[in-house]
Amino acid sequence: MKPAVGGNTTVVVVGGGFAGINAAKKLCRMKGRDGEPIQVTIIDRRNHHLFQPLLYQVATAGLSPADIAMPIRALFKERNVQVVLDEVVAVDGAANLVRGRASVYPYDYLIVACGASHSYFGRDDWEEFAPGLKTLEQATEIRRRILSSFEEAEKSSTVAAVAPWTTFVVVGGGPTGVEMAGAISELARNTVKGEYRRFEPGASRILLIEAGPRLLAGMDPSLSVRAFADLQELGVEVRLNTRVEGIEAQGVKLTHETIPSRTVVWAAGVAPSALGKTLGTDLDPAGRVIVQPDLTLAKFKNIFVLGDQANFKDPETGKPLPGLAPVAMQQGRHAARNIERLIQGAPTETFTYLDKGSMATIGRSRAVMQSGGIKIGGFIAWVGWLFIHIYYLIGFKNRLFVLMQWVWSYLTFSRGARLIVDKDWHLKK
Amino acid sequence: MKPAVGGNTTVVVVGGGFAGINAAKKLCRMKGRDGEPIQVTIIDRRNHHLFQPLLYQVATAGLSPADIAMPIRALFKERNVQVVLDEVVAVDGAANLVRGRASVYPYDYLIVACGASHSYFGRDDWEEFAPGLKTLEQATEIRRRILSSFEEAEKSSTVAAVAPWTTFVVVGGGPTGVEMAGAISELARNTVKGEYRRFEPGASRILLIEAGPRLLAGMDPSLSVRAFADLQELGVEVRLNTRVEGIEAQGVKLTHETIPSRTVVWAAGVAPSALGKTLGTDLDPAGRVIVQPDLTLAKFKNIFVLGDQANFKDPETGKPLPGLAPVAMQQGRHAARNIERLIQGAPTETFTYLDKGSMATIGRSRAVMQSGGIKIGGFIAWVGWLFIHIYYLIGFKNRLFVLMQWVWSYLTFSRGARLIVDKDWHLKK
Repeated sequence: MKPAVGGNTTVVVVGGGFAGINAAKKLCRMKGRDGEPIQVTIIDRRNHHLFQPLLYQVATAGLSPADIAMPIRALFKERNVQVVLDEVVAVDGAANLVRGRASVYPYDYLIVACGASHSYFGRDDWEEFAPGLKTLEQATEIRRRILSSFEEAEKSSTVAAVAPWTTFVVVGGGPTGVEMAGAISELARNTVKGEYRRFEPGASRILLIEAGPRLLAGMDPSLSVRAFADLQELGVEVRLNTRVEGIEAQGVKLTHETIPSRTVVWAAGVAPSALGKTLGTDLDPAGRVIVQPDLTLAKFKNIFVLGDQANFKDPETGKPLPGLAPVAMQQGRHAARNIERLIQGAPTETFTYLDKGSMATIGRSRAVMQSGGIKIGGFIAWVGWLFIHIYYLIGFKNRLFVLMQWVWSYLTFSRGARLIVDKDWHLKK
Repeated sequence: MKPAVGGNTTVVVVGGGFAGINAAKKLCRMKGRDGEPIQVTIIDRRNHHLFQPLLYQVATAGLSPADIAMPIRALFKERNVQVVLDEVVAVDGAANLVRGRASVYPYDYLIVACGASHSYFGRDDWEEFAPGLKTLEQATEIRRRILSSFEEAEKSSTVAAVAPWTTFVVVGGGPTGVEMAGAISELARNTVKGEYRRFEPGASRILLIEAGPRLLAGMDPSLSVRAFADLQELGVEVRLNTRVEGIEAQGVKLTHETIPSRTVVWAAGVAPSALGKTLGTDLDPAGRVIVQPDLTLAKFKNIFVLGDQANFKDPETGKPLPGLAPVAMQQGRHAARNIERLIQGAPTETFTYLDKGSMATIGRSRAVMQSGGIKIGGFIAWVGWLFIHIYYLIGFKNRLFVLMQWVWSYLTFSRGARLIVDKDWHLKK
């Protein structure tokens, strides 16, 4: 057992998402109280950092899991950084201890950034029939379901039996829902063209269901209209102001209608990690931890909560900042700088979100995008989307390979990862 | 339901491996009795053709599953080919019917080429602790185990606790075993270098255990010696003439020793698909179907059995041909031509295997290779191995991307697919 290199100041980062990685990247170059490098410990229950904004492309067979994920370990070769694969179950703020399943981790400063998973608004029984899209496992499961649907349709002997297999329902009209619906439509109408003999995959029904009055509620209303029109052109039926009353193996129940469908994707509610509850501090009704303007907790000035797990009230709008990658990245870097200030005995600074814009892609060559006062749609927005996503992908190799996959898919209409892979690895004779 | 295009002659191909794909590719361009294109139905329980010779690279995080697999459907856009995802459970040769779980398939001619899975010589309880390497699921499971071992070692608090996690045992000294042992050694000693703080992954023990007196028994003895030396140089302990007496969660029992190890890979025995038993014809002791010189069955002249599932006695050596991709590919094409001869009323022809050579790679820049009288090892053999594998990879895109992954990995010592992915996709809060 070699001791880790570093000084007497210890920072524990829980979560290797956008916030945690960006915080740790700064922290590992800072000095502690004794002038030695800070000892940074990153704890995550997974070994990889995941580029979640492209997860929908794994779910629709455009990219492979490894294209959008990097081992956290491989990102931190600095000797004063330790990466630990463990699941954190509680934080003891009074004792300055993080409790994991495998071990206990003392800290001087703590960053909690565990992100969010899906919320079914108390209907967890829906999950089995409508997986969410937050992890690689869920993405490959959705991919398996979509691709298997076409296979089941091909095996069906009547038109009536085909319909539920070629009806795809996406619940939730935010960026993920819009991107999923567009990509499923492209997959059905372009990618598998000419590959089936007994039914026409191009005639698949793709429904996007949104409870609110418009798509992409976080963006400008003009882009909601644009996204609606673009999706319709791609053959997606968009239902606004429509509530899902139930989801079962056979389909989705709406208020006045039941849609027979075997493939449902959940892109509606999000719930922050339950770890927030163990902090003994105020949560908002959604379960997010309410943080101070400097991202710390009112009760513990050495604990920072960031990203999807935090409720940071935007002083301009009075509303919490949205759960977006740029928010998490900026908060990660800001928290690291505030820790440095605390170490140096200086006061912390207030976090200010610099909104560089937001975007969503729709199918293979359209997107909507807003930044400051600029709002654009169509091909130009799509090119912008492409380069921004490539730019932020972690690791040069991932960038290069993802760009190549996209060029390839764009030119050939094909998708490189159309694998139906079972969950069970055991021998099947 | 659209009827498939084609004439009145139906050929069913069971299995989308090297034999089945090569047979179908020829058959779909042939004419049936009525002068119309033959109707070809390919049945496989998976949606993808798998390039099995590179499966060890998926298991050792060098390639992604999608790099070495192609949807069978995407390979056959011809309208007279149907691809069906179904598991065939029996063949009724007297009635000319194939029975699947989903449907029944009548045929005029039948090709059975379901390949082989692992055999534990009656000790199926070993599988849980020592997965084989025949499917993508098994490959990602082995990858998960190898990568998780390093994580568990990092969490261990004593040297004694680290040892079982950094001891990797590969059982079986054929090409798969040799390639796995070499790749695990590269992974431990080069790829993850500098990424762990509490143990030294470079000090991992990698053992390759072979019951017989030499490695690569199918190749020339001089190459067995070369492979042995190359593996030793890579830090692999090779044990020849060593029998495995037991495999448990804690390790591997040999005759005079127990090796504590949490990661064991089975590359020893192979068992042909159980479908052969339903043909009602002679099997060899290993369970392979004994075929006639023209690849048909003695009992049914319209049934061909090919590849790993067949025992085809090589007239030169008097021994069955080995279970190699080139054998399966050549048999597939030969069976298709014999079906054409039968349709035309001509006599079938005897199959002759043209041995173009065999090879195995050892680590990142060495291989052994023999072809005719030529036997080479080292870097030149490795370059040869590389280009032959790229050449035979199905699909231009796969070739290009795999080549790029290799160039990348070769230059950087990194591996692109180091993901620990759970089997369970469900929500974890």
